Amino acid sequence: MSETAPAVVRSAANPQFKALRLLAQDSTAWRKQGRVWLEGDHLCRAALARGVQPELAVYAEFCPAEHRLPAAKTLVLADPLFAAISALESPARMGFVIAVPPAPALDPQAPTVVLDRLQDAGNVGSILRSAAAFGFRQVVALKGSAALWSPKVLRAGMGAHFGLSLFDAADPGLLDALTVPLLTTSSHGGDLLHQARLPWPCAWVLGHEGQGVRAEVDARASLRVRIGQPGGEESLNVAAAAAICLHASAVSRSR
Amino acid sequence: MSETAPAVVRSAANPQFKALRLLAQDSTAWRKQGRVWLEGDHLCRAALARGVQPELAVYAEFCPAEHRLPAAKTLVLADPLFAAISALESPARMGFVIAVPPAPALDPQAPTVVLDRLQDAGNVGSILRSAAAFGFRQVVALKGSAALWSPKVLRAGMGAHFGLSLFDAADPGLLDALTVPLLTTSSHGGDLLHQARLPWPCAWVLGHEGQGVRAEVDARASLRVRIGQPGGEESLNVAAAAAICLHASAVSRSR
Repeated sequence: MSETAPAVVRSAANPQFKALRLLAQDSTAWRKQGRVWLEGDHLCRAALARGVQPELAVYAEFCPAEHRLPAAKTLVLADPLFAAISALESPARMGFVIAVPPAPALDPQAPTVVLDRLQDAGNVGSILRSAAAFGFRQVVALKGSAALWSPKVLRAGMGAHFGLSLFDAADPGLLDALTVPLLTTSSHGGDLLHQARLPWPCAWVLGHEGQGVRAEVDARASLRVRIGQPGGEESLNVAAAAAICLHASAVSRSR
Repeated sequence: MSETAPAVVRSAANPQFKALRLLAQDSTAWRKQGRVWLEGDHLCRAALARGVQPELAVYAEFCPAEHRLPAAKTLVLADPLFAAISALESPARMGFVIAVPPAPALDPQAPTVVLDRLQDAGNVGSILRSAAAFGFRQVVALKGSAALWSPKVLRAGMGAHFGLSLFDAADPGLLDALTVPLLTTSSHGGDLLHQARLPWPCAWVLGHEGQGVRAEVDARASLRVRIGQPGGEESLNVAAAAAICLHASAVSRSR
């Protein structure tokens, strides 16, 4: 006997569909619901690979069986309904709803990235990817930064969220608990990054796109370095600067 | 005798306003009109600093006189009309309309960045900034990449456009004219970037966010390097990878 195929939701008035649409489209709904929507195979597999269990798997009606991933509960949407909640140009055919993982205790000695009021979701997501790639373990987003679990940051993070301990909307006082040295970049002083002796582990602080790192946080830095820019511009994008700094730490550690 | 203050446009039916709104909001209008809209003091000053003469300066009515920049022709918009064409969360109070600078002849020996079908405007803008910062002179965007002069790429470029020779929607055959060696990144082979001997000048090729550099272009590479990622992910954002590579070239040149 074959299993019964699940019922397909075809009405936009369906309450489960409406809750899902809110989660996918309202950038603050995740905070109220304590859950996030992961669209697409890549993000969902990244979550599964790190042991995250989805509360719900959602499939478009015509998502082939071989593209479906294991989940305790399943919702099947008619294709137009799935497309209506999609944020991708080519809508994926599946997604997960997962509970926001609880923030663990801060590890005072872990390699860390601190975000000081970064505004752009794409920048935050890119920095999470660089942090995971270069062996950093935790990311502290100080209050005023783009929310780490917002749909846009999740998409830009491409799964990096699930390999890091994340501290969202953190109070700057949390930095007191870190025993690793704080490092900042400066456009007007300090050693050149490629000549500096970088400590490991450490905590890199990346600041607001326009204003940089605020003075109170910068004052805590053990080391300030600058990225030499022979083109004469002091105008790197913050996620580009972050990638260069985090890579430099990974290289200095391997020497 | 004081000068006569210019008339303030207050109607959304004004033809000059309508043309401007199209330029600011339609991502392809710049190509048809051969002109682009630069919003905000930073972009406009970057253009002026590189000798670009605006066709038209546009001010919100309450933009103070000391914030106005020199231009041959001026248009003053009632504040709500200016806000209606703004793409910024906090609308700037001024902007320029400039003619798209004509593409110069390709310099076969200049340090170059090649974009192979990059899709995301934020990534392209970030790479232009890194290119300008690290002493690269020209950027070749192969057909299928986000248009270099589109409003989103201009905003993300933060003025870097005006310090570079730009080749938009280029045919891959244009690469035949380059005499500098082509460099690509690879996730599965090649020397580690920080151990490689990087030639200068050179041309770095950055590829599509999902698919990377296409095989025909990769086949032209003189050197393939990989960025070591001790976190075990091969998942850097392409603009982050570009920043690391272009910085490495600038550092190797300075040694």
